[in-house]
Amino acid sequence: VPDDWTNLARRLPGVGRREALERNLREAICAGRLPAGTRLPASRALARELGLARGTVVEAYQQLVAEGHLLARRGSGTTVAAARAHPTPAAPPPPPAAPAPRISFHPGVGDLAGFPRALWLRALRRVLADAPPEVLGYGDPAGRPELRAALAAHLALARGMVTSPELVVPCAGFSHALALLARALRAQGARRIALEDPCIPLHREIVQAAGLAAVPLPVDERGARTELLPELRVDAAVVTPAHQFPLGATLAPERRAALVEWAQAHGRLVIEDDYDAELRYDRQPVGAVQGLEPERVATAGTVSKTLAPGLRLGWLALPPGLKSAVLAMRAREDRHLNALDQLVLAELLASGGLERHLRRLRARYGARRERLVAMLAERAPHVRVRGISAGLHAVLEVPDEDALVEAGARRGIELFGLRRFWHAEPRGPGALVLGYGAPPEHAFAAALAALGDLLDQPA
Amino acid sequence: VPDDWTNLARRLPGVGRREALERNLREAICAGRLPAGTRLPASRALARELGLARGTVVEAYQQLVAEGHLLARRGSGTTVAAARAHPTPAAPPPPPAAPAPRISFHPGVGDLAGFPRALWLRALRRVLADAPPEVLGYGDPAGRPELRAALAAHLALARGMVTSPELVVPCAGFSHALALLARALRAQGARRIALEDPCIPLHREIVQAAGLAAVPLPVDERGARTELLPELRVDAAVVTPAHQFPLGATLAPERRAALVEWAQAHGRLVIEDDYDAELRYDRQPVGAVQGLEPERVATAGTVSKTLAPGLRLGWLALPPGLKSAVLAMRAREDRHLNALDQLVLAELLASGGLERHLRRLRARYGARRERLVAMLAERAPHVRVRGISAGLHAVLEVPDEDALVEAGARRGIELFGLRRFWHAEPRGPGALVLGYGAPPEHAFAAALAALGDLLDQPA
Repeated sequence: VPDDWTNLARRLPGVGRREALERNLREAICAGRLPAGTRLPASRALARELGLARGTVVEAYQQLVAEGHLLARRGSGTTVAAARAHPTPAAPPPPPAAPAPRISFHPGVGDLAGFPRALWLRALRRVLADAPPEVLGYGDPAGRPELRAALAAHLALARGMVTSPELVVPCAGFSHALALLARALRAQGARRIALEDPCIPLHREIVQAAGLAAVPLPVDERGARTELLPELRVDAAVVTPAHQFPLGATLAPERRAALVEWAQAHGRLVIEDDYDAELRYDRQPVGAVQGLEPERVATAGTVSKTLAPGLRLGWLALPPGLKSAVLAMRAREDRHLNALDQLVLAELLASGGLERHLRRLRARYGARRERLVAMLAERAPHVRVRGISAGLHAVLEVPDEDALVEAGARRGIELFGLRRFWHAEPRGPGALVLGYGAPPEHAFAAALAALGDLLDQPA
Repeated sequence: VPDDWTNLARRLPGVGRREALERNLREAICAGRLPAGTRLPASRALARELGLARGTVVEAYQQLVAEGHLLARRGSGTTVAAARAHPTPAAPPPPPAAPAPRISFHPGVGDLAGFPRALWLRALRRVLADAPPEVLGYGDPAGRPELRAALAAHLALARGMVTSPELVVPCAGFSHALALLARALRAQGARRIALEDPCIPLHREIVQAAGLAAVPLPVDERGARTELLPELRVDAAVVTPAHQFPLGATLAPERRAALVEWAQAHGRLVIEDDYDAELRYDRQPVGAVQGLEPERVATAGTVSKTLAPGLRLGWLALPPGLKSAVLAMRAREDRHLNALDQLVLAELLASGGLERHLRRLRARYGARRERLVAMLAERAPHVRVRGISAGLHAVLEVPDEDALVEAGARRGIELFGLRRFWHAEPRGPGALVLGYGAPPEHAFAAALAALGDLLDQPA
């Protein structure tokens, strides 16, 4: 028995001698140190060498024979199994991390440091104290009934929606809802879907990956130009009526009417992205379009803007005609979200804990927006601010968005130009889509000052 | 102003008079009590009637005009908007709940009452105390790096797998992993996929929904007959090597070799369902097939059997060639699982908390299996027990499975016949797939006695 073999007796923390031998031997084979065809010492010889009981070695050999790493043939002893490629998969090294920006004005996230950790933990403690064991089972692919009931009640009251627990499906956010709807529409024969121009590029990718053509729907100061829908010959339209993303308008009343009339007259589907409707600072948010035509509108919302995107928690209120197709997809795929997370959100809705959190958020973000507007009036009066007083972002019309984004990057300030949101060519002036919600509260004043310095100076 | 209008002033809990008026008016329109064309009282008249300030009524009217529920035209006052169907979606009433069985022997779930609630809550408290705010952001669609690293280390040690954090993707359980893989394979041109016969019917549905033909791969006492794969002309094969579900064999060494040789020789994919490999009671579990050929095997595991299915937490170890396709799907759909849940599982893996829980589970379920076998030897010696000492279920060969399942149902005992798991016709004798893990610990003795009574008697 050569010296090399003695390494096989290396002890491993927390496991016995038999298992340590087995793991060391397996690792030596997988790493190629014991190539195919290598003849192993007789169990008696190896046991003596390693100071182990013979039975320990026999068992380890048997285990690796069972796994296919070793071959045992009468008369020829035990050998390493036939040559196979056993590389450690050569995953490319992760790209060198770009230095994190000092200040981010990401338009799609709120203040992550403000996530109400204690509120979440308390709610989970209550859920774990009260929930019967059955909630931990496979469960209904449509989701927990407690959450579906709490959401249906919340959406009726807060968003003027006409729905019922049977039609509300918890999901992992708007992009998940859109992926489900796009695949369901494609399976029903749909070919083309309109998306606002500008919009979030990921939403175009989602519908294209489902096999649908993404058709641009122009947007102006009154929101999406829904009066154009009949001539676009699309099967569905994705819209952000409460707060157009990114341009920031609320869909005007005649545009809402045109949207609903198109869906009714042509039997089409409206997909309403209600991503930040809880955050309006100047008045009550406009109710969801879904309330006008619950048979033809699917509305999806999320806690990404009000709690945190990392929770991957949202909901989809379905028109009755799409319910079975979407639920069948859930049943065949992820089944549903973590039941505990669903019960925590239900608890936060039912207890009023989420509503109290929202009141704090509205005060905080509303004040941030006012401070932004005041700073701009003082330090960059040439910058026009577009969009309603809502959500986490404002649109700042600037003479040269690309130069500003680059100048910001040089100073460690992450800015988002409007350019990335157009389908193809820009249909309007250059702008920054400025996420005033993103900086942590304690750093907001400094972030605003840094933005002022940037806009104050030639790029 | 007629009496009916006074209902509009009904106060609602927690909201002001303006918002209450707005909600009542919206609800009256949506419910059809104010039909299209109805002319509303002048704001001054309604305000006087309801005892509200005129401005309150004006604002409520404006809000509903903005939403499209009302039309305001100069000279003709305010009217309810053009006729639309506004039904409350007529969701079918939920089916009358069948009375829950008194005792369930579901083969796919463990003792849900034994879920370690305190362990989970403590781990979340630690995560919330330590995690930086960034973890709550949109994050990498591949999942949290902490969990991917913890899983890669765990899978190497406990399952003999050869992988790396870059190739391990947290997902919502095996069915989610299978749906992702099936869709990725279909997009790459695959047409046919082999599934063990018998297997879980949902897995057949998943691959069929992805557009693939589900081809039966026969199973015998030595596991799946992988030597038949070359003649099945399939692009991939779904197998349960550690513990065939439902028949309970471990894949024999020569079958493991044939499986890997087929994948290598024909460039095919093995999809390894490692659903309960942590639960073996008589010896060390056999390592994953993936360790023999990491370039051609995708292995998915889950906490459904060891913690709870309702958590929807699992993992998928990808061959390098499928990584980008699967990650692109995650990026376009749900993005990833709740980051907090991922960090809790990482914490349970890294702290050893999960391993300690597993040791308790093995002792508990191993003893249950022994008690089941002893009871059968005494009370139903004609029943043959198939399958290794592992997991949550045993296969009991019985003369007439259908009669037994029915007799059980009459007594409130939920039994699962083998019949439901075959692709088409049974390829073997009738049997019960008996989940001895499912009853709560305190009720196990009674459940076993009830089973004994049932098997003891003519059906």
